[in-house]
Amino acid sequence: MAMSTENEHPVKAFGWAARDTTGHLSPFRFSRRATGEKDVTFKVLYCGMVTEVGTKVTKFKVGDKVGVGCMVGSCRSCANCKEDLENYCPEMILTYGAKYYDGTITHGGYSDIMVSDEHFVIKIPDNLPLEGSAPLLCAGITVYSPLKYYGLDKAGMHLGVVGLGGLGHMAVKFAKAMGLKVTVISTSPNKKKEAMDHLGADAFLVSRDTEEMELAMGTMDGIIDTVSAVHALLPLIGLLKTNGKLVMVGAPEKPLELLAFPLLMGRKMVGGSGIGGIKETQEMIDFAAKHNIVADIELIPMDYVNTAMERLSKADVKYRFVIDIVNSLKPS
Amino acid sequence: MAMSTENEHPVKAFGWAARDTTGHLSPFRFSRRATGEKDVTFKVLYCGMVTEVGTKVTKFKVGDKVGVGCMVGSCRSCANCKEDLENYCPEMILTYGAKYYDGTITHGGYSDIMVSDEHFVIKIPDNLPLEGSAPLLCAGITVYSPLKYYGLDKAGMHLGVVGLGGLGHMAVKFAKAMGLKVTVISTSPNKKKEAMDHLGADAFLVSRDTEEMELAMGTMDGIIDTVSAVHALLPLIGLLKTNGKLVMVGAPEKPLELLAFPLLMGRKMVGGSGIGGIKETQEMIDFAAKHNIVADIELIPMDYVNTAMERLSKADVKYRFVIDIVNSLKPS
Repeated sequence: MAMSTENEHPVKAFGWAARDTTGHLSPFRFSRRATGEKDVTFKVLYCGMVTEVGTKVTKFKVGDKVGVGCMVGSCRSCANCKEDLENYCPEMILTYGAKYYDGTITHGGYSDIMVSDEHFVIKIPDNLPLEGSAPLLCAGITVYSPLKYYGLDKAGMHLGVVGLGGLGHMAVKFAKAMGLKVTVISTSPNKKKEAMDHLGADAFLVSRDTEEMELAMGTMDGIIDTVSAVHALLPLIGLLKTNGKLVMVGAPEKPLELLAFPLLMGRKMVGGSGIGGIKETQEMIDFAAKHNIVADIELIPMDYVNTAMERLSKADVKYRFVIDIVNSLKPS
Repeated sequence: MAMSTENEHPVKAFGWAARDTTGHLSPFRFSRRATGEKDVTFKVLYCGMVTEVGTKVTKFKVGDKVGVGCMVGSCRSCANCKEDLENYCPEMILTYGAKYYDGTITHGGYSDIMVSDEHFVIKIPDNLPLEGSAPLLCAGITVYSPLKYYGLDKAGMHLGVVGLGGLGHMAVKFAKAMGLKVTVISTSPNKKKEAMDHLGADAFLVSRDTEEMELAMGTMDGIIDTVSAVHALLPLIGLLKTNGKLVMVGAPEKPLELLAFPLLMGRKMVGGSGIGGIKETQEMIDFAAKHNIVADIELIPMDYVNTAMERLSKADVKYRFVIDIVNSLKPS
């Protein structure tokens, strides 16, 4: 007989979880594995604080501030893993709702404690406030990684950022810290003030304003496109210089239309990128610490999570919700 | 009053040309400009032989074997031109049917003589047979340039070549000379023998054979896609490894469907490339000479050109028609 979720591991854990397809979250008693020799167990605050480390753990000691992003495992032996690209490993294990090496389900971080192989744990530098750092481990690395990989990290370059949500606002912050000129491209003219005054973007384009778009044609070295709804690529490709790169980090469910000729005529490309490897995630966090970059967040109590999910579906958040686990997660 | 085509320049020229939208070609008397100080005038064979050079010409002397590709002019001062990418100059002047600096029309190469600024003239190495070299200046550079730019030129890499026509057969030859493993991907199983036995490809995939395609998933570093009809990109993207590059050199008129998720999941990209700059075209020809690479051609007399056009529309040629100008262009 299969063990119950509450008893399959020796360490009691408590959190909130969705148990059916409605997506409604409610309090959830489960269990975590004992600290393995390369494991790190930590108390979840927003990010976590290490409470126990395995005998062979070398990266962390008790008391360290740490975080875990979207993944907690990978095969560690394929070509991708060997190149620090665990995020592209075919056997990558997500932090939430995935099957772990031992066959049990990973339960995410909406809980009092977590345990993770040290390889997948990120050290949070002391000067970074924890609540604003949490989204860096997903939204932050998702935009930082393509800026580096596609060579869009050189001071003086001109970057477009399409969509000003959780990903987009991080892209503006990182690109500005790298010394780029940043233009935000959005369907909403009312985001202009926020983009320029608050986030420090250099320019703002309303994507529906064909005249404005026309004037900006051929001016950008690259574009980070964070939009996950179906949208037109052609006007964005038009904004690129020769050799320009349009990088998609949002994933519209349906296919987009791609006309080949505009790519041929300027040796342009449309690429994708998905989160980032562990080594690069640590590099990103260290860069963020150096430049005082955190996500803009709205801190919410645990029992607000279902309301937050509803607001998320209406894009009603600036720019990420972070759950105040340490102060609000109480067993009912 | 505008001068007639026959008298606008001092040098009489004779060739074949289309004069209306039917595309039917017929004998055509026109004129070429006198040799300017940086111009090279040459007799057209398949490629040409220099007959006269301007006073400031430094690259060529009378008697040199030369060729001209798709372009005879560009602004020479924009960012693209300064980086030897005249092919992406917004003012690039095509060899045929375009307006030259002096306002007259460029008349292409189906004629007894040509005159071109030396900058746009390529030196053909002595060991290359001229008739097989002519298509290198278009089809050759069109596939050579993206192999270099997209880093798909490293020995041991695995390249897919989609479509085995004029461009595709050149891609196989160049990639094999660079030491790559080459797999031809085609809708026609009957091209397998030709691809492997004659052109030296290492493998052959029938794109409609889902089982074969499935087995090859995730094995290729890059793909040169030469198909100019609308086709599915998704199975091709599936053939790529992480960081793989699908490069389109054909230009379907209608948009193709592009699903973002498969690009994100392997940091893949879809890029384009159009011919190549003059410096790189010379490099390509020198590489071809070193490796004895020429196009496979069918040599035809001038008055066969309309039949050839019809056969081209049915893809009935292996792999390029070359007109035997020197032996068959006779004034009627």
